[in-house]
Amino acid sequence: MYYVGIDIGGMTIKAGLVDENGRILAKKSCATKPERHYSCLVADMYNLLASLAQEQGIDFDKIKAIGIGCPGTVNTKKGIITYSGNLNFINVDIIKEFKKHTDLAVCVGNDANCAALGEVMFGGGKGTKNAILITLGTGVGTGFVVDGKILEGVDGAGAEGGHICIKMDGQQCTCGEKGCWEAYASATALMRITKEAMKNNPHSLMHKIVSEHGEVSGRTAFLAYKTGDKAGQEVVNEYVKNIAWGLVNLVNIFRPEIIMIGGGVSHEGEYFIKMIEKVVVKHAFGGKYNKVCPIVAAALGNDAGIVGAAALAMQEFN
Amino acid sequence: MYYVGIDIGGMTIKAGLVDENGRILAKKSCATKPERHYSCLVADMYNLLASLAQEQGIDFDKIKAIGIGCPGTVNTKKGIITYSGNLNFINVDIIKEFKKHTDLAVCVGNDANCAALGEVMFGGGKGTKNAILITLGTGVGTGFVVDGKILEGVDGAGAEGGHICIKMDGQQCTCGEKGCWEAYASATALMRITKEAMKNNPHSLMHKIVSEHGEVSGRTAFLAYKTGDKAGQEVVNEYVKNIAWGLVNLVNIFRPEIIMIGGGVSHEGEYFIKMIEKVVVKHAFGGKYNKVCPIVAAALGNDAGIVGAAALAMQEFN
Repeated sequence: MYYVGIDIGGMTIKAGLVDENGRILAKKSCATKPERHYSCLVADMYNLLASLAQEQGIDFDKIKAIGIGCPGTVNTKKGIITYSGNLNFINVDIIKEFKKHTDLAVCVGNDANCAALGEVMFGGGKGTKNAILITLGTGVGTGFVVDGKILEGVDGAGAEGGHICIKMDGQQCTCGEKGCWEAYASATALMRITKEAMKNNPHSLMHKIVSEHGEVSGRTAFLAYKTGDKAGQEVVNEYVKNIAWGLVNLVNIFRPEIIMIGGGVSHEGEYFIKMIEKVVVKHAFGGKYNKVCPIVAAALGNDAGIVGAAALAMQEFN
Repeated sequence: MYYVGIDIGGMTIKAGLVDENGRILAKKSCATKPERHYSCLVADMYNLLASLAQEQGIDFDKIKAIGIGCPGTVNTKKGIITYSGNLNFINVDIIKEFKKHTDLAVCVGNDANCAALGEVMFGGGKGTKNAILITLGTGVGTGFVVDGKILEGVDGAGAEGGHICIKMDGQQCTCGEKGCWEAYASATALMRITKEAMKNNPHSLMHKIVSEHGEVSGRTAFLAYKTGDKAGQEVVNEYVKNIAWGLVNLVNIFRPEIIMIGGGVSHEGEYFIKMIEKVVVKHAFGGKYNKVCPIVAAALGNDAGIVGAAALAMQEFN
């Protein structure tokens, strides 16, 4: 049997035909154009899956279920997208809309939660039942798998680990609050810290790097770090500390079997993950009596959305 | 059928005979004397339960199982108390020791986790499956029930919510780290804040209250607060804020159905709980689209340990 994983992003809708082992046989995408009514987006999703099936020569009766992952607050139990700012969705009954096109089983979940489940079933967390995936990008996304199942919270409003406060009255976050982990550990935060350090260190190599690359990016400080630039090293160390303290909180609560780090910054390499791990191990509660689980890079990369949505479908309809 | 709940504290071992509805039929206690070898403590526990059964005229074959709750890191799956500072226990196989006395089914769990389960099954969280219990005392204890089950984490090392960092580089905590929630929201923290405020406000009514009561306590600021004393009000407001921000973190992660607050400070009354709730609702993620669950006082009080341990036994052996 096959599954279809659909990943709705603010820019692109991606769909993939996925087998029972989480392998993507084929994928297709189209522009989201979120200014449209949701029924248009759903029609596009259906068309993607129909053409995927046709091109792969797979009958609909070989497709067991469809999973949809989308950003925002999603109530998987009720099949409702309560709120998705990126997609202009408020209380959208996406399952009902999808059922206008097909009788296939459909479910919907938050994209970060789906990605965590996908990583647990087929990626970096394979073989575990209790895992955390954090995604360091524009924001900080978190997905929690507890006892093999997504932790969604009432009405799907949980798993917003990016908005745990790690510094009361601290840095302003885009959510309106102050001191959120996201305001310290996102790639956006890294760029802010980089810019501040550049201002305070006019002779740092970071200035040369930026003039070569055109602008400050999430890589600026890392490039300087590797050359031994002191200011660059301070930025990276501060950023590592920021990521680690949020993880310490999650470790102290969940003590998962594995923590996976995804998102652009995670591609920085093994050394960066190890730096984070070192700080987490140092500060996690319980010291020598309580070992901290391995911290690894997420494995599914850009396919996490599709595989995660398909994984949700496997879990919901098995 | 009956259950026995045993609550091992640093000072006292309490045991209770509990029915299937979580009602305590009778209870007994003895001094812990934790300087002794654990086999002596287990012998005492067995004696408590044997005399309870005898006095109540209940045959051992009417006792379905025994649950033990104890502070520290407890691995329920393996039946091992990994580490309990208060009891001088390191890697104690308490089940094996207990089995030397009786063939009855026995299980062990962390006391705060057991209390959370007890509250969910028979107390303030009855009817829910996803709940959080926080206990504000010398420290801040937390217990999480997810999908009707205790969240214990690998080797039982999780659920240490008192040690989530809410202020990086902040107040020193007894655990060795800085900025832990416990260092802001425990009764100990309240007394520290009270003392600081008294120092800075020599005319505060808190000085009079302390001279009448003999020493600063967790009640000092509350008593002053109620008379309209400005410094007392500032202390209470700061303390409420400190409690609330830790809860905001837990709400953003778990979105439980209910949050229960236990411990001495929780007896302050409904108005205090409502003050906390107001701040949590204001700062929890998602604003108007995501309602925050009710926050209530825990219901089981001093019996939470016994009922919680019995609740664990019911869950493990049902």
